[in-house]
Amino acid sequence: MPVNLSAPDPKALHSVSGVRIGVTEAGVRKAGRKDLTVVLLDEGASVGGVFTQNRFCAAPVQVCRDHLAANFGIRALVINTGNANAGTGEDGLTRARATCIAAARLLDVAPEQVLPFSTGVIMEPLPLDRIEAGLPAAIDDAKPEHWARAAEGIMTTDTVPKAFSRQVQVGGATINITGVSKGAGMIRPNMATMLGFMATDACVAPELMQPLARQLAEGSFNRVTVDGDTSTNDSFVVIATGKASHAVIRTLDSAEGQALLEAMQEVARLLAQAIVRDGEGATKFITVKVEGGRDAAECRQVAYAIAHSPLVKTAFFASDPNLGRILAAVGYAGIADLDQTGIDLFLDDVHVAVKGGRNPAYREEDGQRVMARSEITVRVVLGRGQASDTVWTCDLSYDYVSINADYRS
Amino acid sequence: MPVNLSAPDPKALHSVSGVRIGVTEAGVRKAGRKDLTVVLLDEGASVGGVFTQNRFCAAPVQVCRDHLAANFGIRALVINTGNANAGTGEDGLTRARATCIAAARLLDVAPEQVLPFSTGVIMEPLPLDRIEAGLPAAIDDAKPEHWARAAEGIMTTDTVPKAFSRQVQVGGATINITGVSKGAGMIRPNMATMLGFMATDACVAPELMQPLARQLAEGSFNRVTVDGDTSTNDSFVVIATGKASHAVIRTLDSAEGQALLEAMQEVARLLAQAIVRDGEGATKFITVKVEGGRDAAECRQVAYAIAHSPLVKTAFFASDPNLGRILAAVGYAGIADLDQTGIDLFLDDVHVAVKGGRNPAYREEDGQRVMARSEITVRVVLGRGQASDTVWTCDLSYDYVSINADYRS
Repeated sequence: MPVNLSAPDPKALHSVSGVRIGVTEAGVRKAGRKDLTVVLLDEGASVGGVFTQNRFCAAPVQVCRDHLAANFGIRALVINTGNANAGTGEDGLTRARATCIAAARLLDVAPEQVLPFSTGVIMEPLPLDRIEAGLPAAIDDAKPEHWARAAEGIMTTDTVPKAFSRQVQVGGATINITGVSKGAGMIRPNMATMLGFMATDACVAPELMQPLARQLAEGSFNRVTVDGDTSTNDSFVVIATGKASHAVIRTLDSAEGQALLEAMQEVARLLAQAIVRDGEGATKFITVKVEGGRDAAECRQVAYAIAHSPLVKTAFFASDPNLGRILAAVGYAGIADLDQTGIDLFLDDVHVAVKGGRNPAYREEDGQRVMARSEITVRVVLGRGQASDTVWTCDLSYDYVSINADYRS
Repeated sequence: MPVNLSAPDPKALHSVSGVRIGVTEAGVRKAGRKDLTVVLLDEGASVGGVFTQNRFCAAPVQVCRDHLAANFGIRALVINTGNANAGTGEDGLTRARATCIAAARLLDVAPEQVLPFSTGVIMEPLPLDRIEAGLPAAIDDAKPEHWARAAEGIMTTDTVPKAFSRQVQVGGATINITGVSKGAGMIRPNMATMLGFMATDACVAPELMQPLARQLAEGSFNRVTVDGDTSTNDSFVVIATGKASHAVIRTLDSAEGQALLEAMQEVARLLAQAIVRDGEGATKFITVKVEGGRDAAECRQVAYAIAHSPLVKTAFFASDPNLGRILAAVGYAGIADLDQTGIDLFLDDVHVAVKGGRNPAYREEDGQRVMARSEITVRVVLGRGQASDTVWTCDLSYDYVSINADYRS
């Protein structure tokens, strides 16, 4: 059961002029699943992307990097589930490239204008024949209003499709922003998430797309974790079709750039948080905010130590205010000169620990009251500076073990 | 159910001349539990200790460091379960020191000659009155043959007491080595384990005790992990009573030093591995060996990434050869210039991946056959150097969640 997250209403998702989406059942791993999605872009769209920092990055991630660098203008994204095409060596690269060649032929574009994405089981050969066979149906299905279908088409262990949409005024024009994401396990994005795609019809200078993608990822996908496992296939792609009628944005520092960035950041954050809300086995959505650090990096380090601790996560699952486990995680986060006597801990509005020890005014029933909630904020004050940072995570339940013990079988 | 680990036979544990052990039920947290243990040392024993690197280290850890530095000669260890006296601020330090003062008064020694150890729930005040009330009975109980009782007296979520013993010839004398350990969760020792105590009657120069403790920990407790949570209370103490009749060992590089080190290392390793075998919810004992690295540190980094991955651990629990998860963990271990095309993966004798891709000769049923075993070796060859390192871990099961969701309640 995802935490306060339901499937998107297709009617609430704004189409983005210049983007059409098609989905089909290609039988990549199992029959009867929407497992092949194409995102078709009109000529002239600007595209930026950030990808996993995992050194075992998947073949499609390597091909995406090459094709974005080739700079021919991206015209299509091809996304399959059921197989990650990772840990597949040279043969995997050949199959990822062959996917692009097949799509390019059908669309009459160059293979370098196609970006491939795969997600699913690692170290299995990609069934290229089924993807090639499915592509014509996916392309035939393409329509601008198919965003909800895209959110469904890219799901793996997700229990709910994830899509969000916003409109914002930029330079006198109404801009549409819509995005989809997927992922529930192997979630500790490092530069991007499992799969996230966002499009806007705003007019954005092509050279801004990479910094835009990076900045959006930093405030969203790079701040969530389910299980600390950084995926081999993390990819986050941002598309600007340039169909809206306003002057091209040439810097993110302008008023128009800021308005666009803010609205896109909101959608990106919702997409990233949706992955945590639907985290494998999640029953709680936890915000971990660390303040009073010397810099944001050390705050983030402490926040991730808390967010990854199996002991903290199982305590949340049990609604048990066994909060010393949070202090232990702060202590082993790796800040060599951290002084425990400077540290305060809050659980929502409850002041749990003062100067490294239990707050004399803290009562167990106050902790218990907060732990029973489905959304909880852990706030740690390090007391050594002015910086802060926030990450989002979920608890660790029986169902996480169940899902991952049974995922393939 | 621990993995291939049973309770020690008290008769197989050699007494160590100069060491007496007493245990009692002090009711620290719950009634009817052996929760207070004293280890009494004759005058003249040499003692070394290594302690947690957690910056939220417990009050008793801080007092142990002070008392070892004071160098008055250690005469007693006082160990309670049921309460960790961690995250307890200044008041916790006062209570840890008061424990030493109470024991010192009963034993007619200085408080600085007593080392305190606590393990259990974090951020609760230590019930000093119960410990003070229990000390006379624990001291009355002290006998040289009580090592199995000690192993039982220091247990928390352990399901089996952990004690090992060896005899070795050193300088013409027969030396006894016996040790106990405890711990099952919050196990990712960093310089020491939850609690480990070893004693020998060998004659060892006092200045050798710290390097000896460090070296033993490096090859044992510092190579195991259950859940990646470094405890606030990790302590590993090594005692040499000097009762044996051989010339004092003044360097570990001598033949006598090497013989002693080797035998003590074996006991330390068995104690550390016992913690993993009895890891919370463990059903499998996993050896992760990483070879072909540039240095041991990077091999260890990769080994721990694998050993901490919830996805790898749940796959072992399920006996599911979903082995791409291991490659993913290798990839995110943090080696920036790692080349995936140089990497091979073995599961026991089965060659799973070659040069970063699936071995064409690998058959799923071979992986399945190994995964069904209760003891499995994962071997990763990085292909970039000659160094190697090994860590030991266990799988992640429903019972881990169950134990940690219910631990306090």
